[in-house]
Order: sequence, then structure tokens, then C-alpha cells
Amino acid sequence: MRIAVVSPSNRIDQKLADRVKTVAAAQFAGRSAAQQPDLEFLPQCFLSSCHFAGPDAARAAAFLEVANDPTFDAVWFARGGYGASRLLSLIDGNLTQAAHEKKYLGYSDAGNILALLLNANVRNLAHGPMPTDINREGGEVAIRRALAWLVDEDPELLEPSTTDGLPVAAFNLTVLSHLVGTPWEPDLTGRILMVEDIDEHMYRMDRALWQVLSARGMAGIIGLRLGRCAEIPDNDPEYGLSEEEMAQHRCAAAGVPYLGRADIGHDAMNKIVSFNI
Amino acid sequence: MRIAVVSPSNRIDQKLADRVKTVAAAQFAGRSAAQQPDLEFLPQCFLSSCHFAGPDAARAAAFLEVANDPTFDAVWFARGGYGASRLLSLIDGNLTQAAHEKKYLGYSDAGNILALLLNANVRNLAHGPMPTDINREGGEVAIRRALAWLVDEDPELLEPSTTDGLPVAAFNLTVLSHLVGTPWEPDLTGRILMVEDIDEHMYRMDRALWQVLSARGMAGIIGLRLGRCAEIPDNDPEYGLSEEEMAQHRCAAAGVPYLGRADIGHDAMNKIVSFNI
Repeated sequence: MRIAVVSPSNRIDQKLADRVKTVAAAQFAGRSAAQQPDLEFLPQCFLSSCHFAGPDAARAAAFLEVANDPTFDAVWFARGGYGASRLLSLIDGNLTQAAHEKKYLGYSDAGNILALLLNANVRNLAHGPMPTDINREGGEVAIRRALAWLVDEDPELLEPSTTDGLPVAAFNLTVLSHLVGTPWEPDLTGRILMVEDIDEHMYRMDRALWQVLSARGMAGIIGLRLGRCAEIPDNDPEYGLSEEEMAQHRCAAAGVPYLGRADIGHDAMNKIVSFNI
Repeated sequence: MRIAVVSPSNRIDQKLADRVKTVAAAQFAGRSAAQQPDLEFLPQCFLSSCHFAGPDAARAAAFLEVANDPTFDAVWFARGGYGASRLLSLIDGNLTQAAHEKKYLGYSDAGNILALLLNANVRNLAHGPMPTDINREGGEVAIRRALAWLVDEDPELLEPSTTDGLPVAAFNLTVLSHLVGTPWEPDLTGRILMVEDIDEHMYRMDRALWQVLSARGMAGIIGLRLGRCAEIPDNDPEYGLSEEEMAQHRCAAAGVPYLGRADIGHDAMNKIVSFNI
């Protein structure tokens, strides 16, 4: 099994890649050499161009190179940040059949690419941990969960509520809100939507959820689950509701069933949400 | 002339209203009593409900009350913040003919209401200072500019580039990005778009402008002008471009002409942009 790591948003460094490779080697040490995954970090991950892991063209080319390469079985996004949305017009229309026959894993800003792939009818997409999560408290657990999904697709790793057979998709709330109305707004018709966020004020999460649930293209969502909302800055004036009360209010106003919490977020506990149920 | 002040977003206090009334009284002191504007702050402005100037229903009702009242000649939005978007579904479809026969002035979060009014073919809309601007450095100048526009529509007050006769509209960039894809996304076909922002990281402004210029509904924009971007927090990693270079890149990528700076922003210099040219 060959897993390619690319970074459509911000850069990572070689040391982080080495640490993730060490975790992977230990995790699959008991298997025969032929059954051990081959984890390949593309050089693009280590490029630096202002905010980004290389220029837009280089990041888009790196993604297309591995997505369209039939010898890779999976594409794992290295980290989030910002920048993947800028690649969508460069990627769109350039996927080959090989891109449809592999799996993809990531979240946060990588959700932009998942949205494009979803609309392109690529089936094996999942929202879950990325290499950079090794820097979080207890982060090695997240890396092992991600690798176990990429290699074995163990259903035990799935976000618990997603095992009821209903189609689902998960996104960072702010990232999703900025896809709304663009050609890459994901078609979530018939799916439960899970959202999580980090470092956003309550009023900003309210506004983003208002947009998502008001959007003309989002009318087909069959329910919402709220993941964890981490590191919420103080709201001035006091917002007065918890993030779950906020989500309940927004769902009620939009006529979308609120289904409870989701076990996802910007943390080591972030469970796998497969879009392929 | 009767001017109603309502607050669809955050609250103001009575003291601020009194200060604005004092400025207005001095500004028009040389006129006969019949020619002095009557500035009426609705009690709704002073309500408080968590983040907002009263509950959604109260804020929407206050706006509709004055918009649909033929005895008011103008509606002036008290301030920005957050909350106007939540009123749009309550206001939509409830405007009477009287609402079409008055002028409206505001910016920032009040741009949500301007967007709805623009789509409802209300003609006399303007982006410009609000009562709360009296708290800015040199803010009385902004108040006098707003009042002079509301009372006399002096073309000297207009943002200089807008006097060439081309249709124009101005919005806070972040507010506009969160309208994209919703039923209240403004139809900017055939208009120059001006955007300004405050307290947004470079990557967030890049993302918001990417969304606006990528949006399916925004293809008819004939050019972009960038207003002032105030209080930009540090970008990590270093963003590497100025806000104008960012806007130029985004416009080039989207094929939208970049036309230069606009003399608007969250400051006392904020000039009037009339949508009615």
C-alpha cells in the first residue's frame, strides 16, 4: 500500500514527516514487509512561499500528480491552514480515472479538496486526522487512527453516530461557509452534515452556520451534528449561548433537524467520518 | 425631514444618541425649524439581548416599522457588529411601497440589509458613516458627512471615483462573503464592487475575496476597488503581500479588473458610496 502525503495549504517540516514515519513504522512493525504501508511525503510539503507550502501552481500540480497516479492507493493531506481553496480552479476538470480509485483523508482547510472530490463523485473520502496532528497533546493516537483507517478501514475508528448507515459529510464550519455559492460548494443533498471549528468567536460561528443553513444549495441537508468548537475567543458583547445552543437555534430557524454532538474536532480525539457510507 | 435610526445588529446607548443629536442640531442650526431634520432614535436601538440590540423579532419589527412608514424620509442604521443577517428572512417579502420611497444609509453589518434592499429594487441606498462612528477619532466629521448626505445628498460627499457615472456598490468584505450563496446575495451585475474590512487577518481577507470573486452569482461584477483594511492582525506565517497586492492577485485570478483604491473604511474618512448612480 502506497500513501502519498501532499500539502495544499501550509507547509510542514521534514522533522514532522520523520516523526510520523516513525509512528507508522512502529504501528505496522508486526506485518510482513509487503504488508507495511509505504508513506511518501512529497517534497512539495516542505516548500515555502509566503503563507503557503509553495506557489498555487506547485501545490495544485503536486496534488494532481499523486491523485492521478494509479500506483498510489491513498492521498493523505499533511495539514490545514489556508490555501486549498485557491487550488480548486486549477484541479477542477483535471482528475483522471486513477483519482477515483483511491482514498483521501484530511480535514480543516483540506475540506476544500474533499468538497471538489465529492462533487466529482469520488467515493472514498474521509474527514479525519492529518500528519500535523502529531503536534497535539496525545497526537500520536490521532496519527495511528488515521493510518489504521488508510490501511485497514477498520469500522471501529468511525465517528460513532455515522454507523447507522445514513450518508454523512464533515467539514470545518468556516471552511465550508467560504465554499458556499462557489462552483465548489459541496452537494450535501441527502446527507447529515457534521461541522467543527477552532479559534472562531461565537458570533462568527453563528454567522457561518447561518450562511450554510440559509444557502440555496444546502437545502438538501437532512440534519446537523455539531463537533467540538475549540479555543473560542471571548465574545464582546457576551454572546449568551453555548455553541450547542447556538447550533440548535440556527437549525430551528432553518428547519434543519439538530441531531446532537459529533465526535470530531481540532484535537487528538478527532474520529473518522467516512463520506462513503 | 424625518430620519429614523434603527439598529439591526448590536445596541447603542442613549448617551451616544444624544451626542449625535447635538451634532445634528449644531449642523442645521442656521436653517428654519421646518427645514431642520428630525432625528429619531427608535427605542429598539437601546434594547439588549445577549449579543444583540434586542431579539431578532424585535429588531426586524423595528426595521419594518420605519421602512414601511411613509412619514419617514430616511432610515439610518445605528451601527454594525453582528446580527443583521439573521433578520433577512423576517424582512424579506414584507416591504411596502413606502419602503421604496426613502433613503437608507449604513455600512459594515448593515450591508446585509442594503443587500436585501438592493435585490428588492429599492433605489436610494448608500454605504457610509453611522451614528456609532462618533466614537472614532475625528468621528464628528463622519456624522456630519452622513447627515449632510441624508438631508441634502450633496454630490461633494461622494467617494471620488464614483462620480464617473458607472453603477457601484460597497460592502464590508467579510459581511459580503457571508451573503454569498444565500437568497440575499446581492445582485451586483454591471456594478463596480468596493470592499473594505477591519480586524481580519490577511489570509481571511484573501479567502473572503476568493469566495466573492469565485461565486457563481458574482460573475457580473465589472471591476473591484479596495477600500481601507484596518487593524489587520499579524499573519502566521507571514503573508508576504500587502492587502492591495492580495486584491490584485485575486482579481487577476478571477479575471475581474482591479481599479485601484476606494476612499471607504471603518474610520472617520469613510466617504459616501451611493448605489443610485
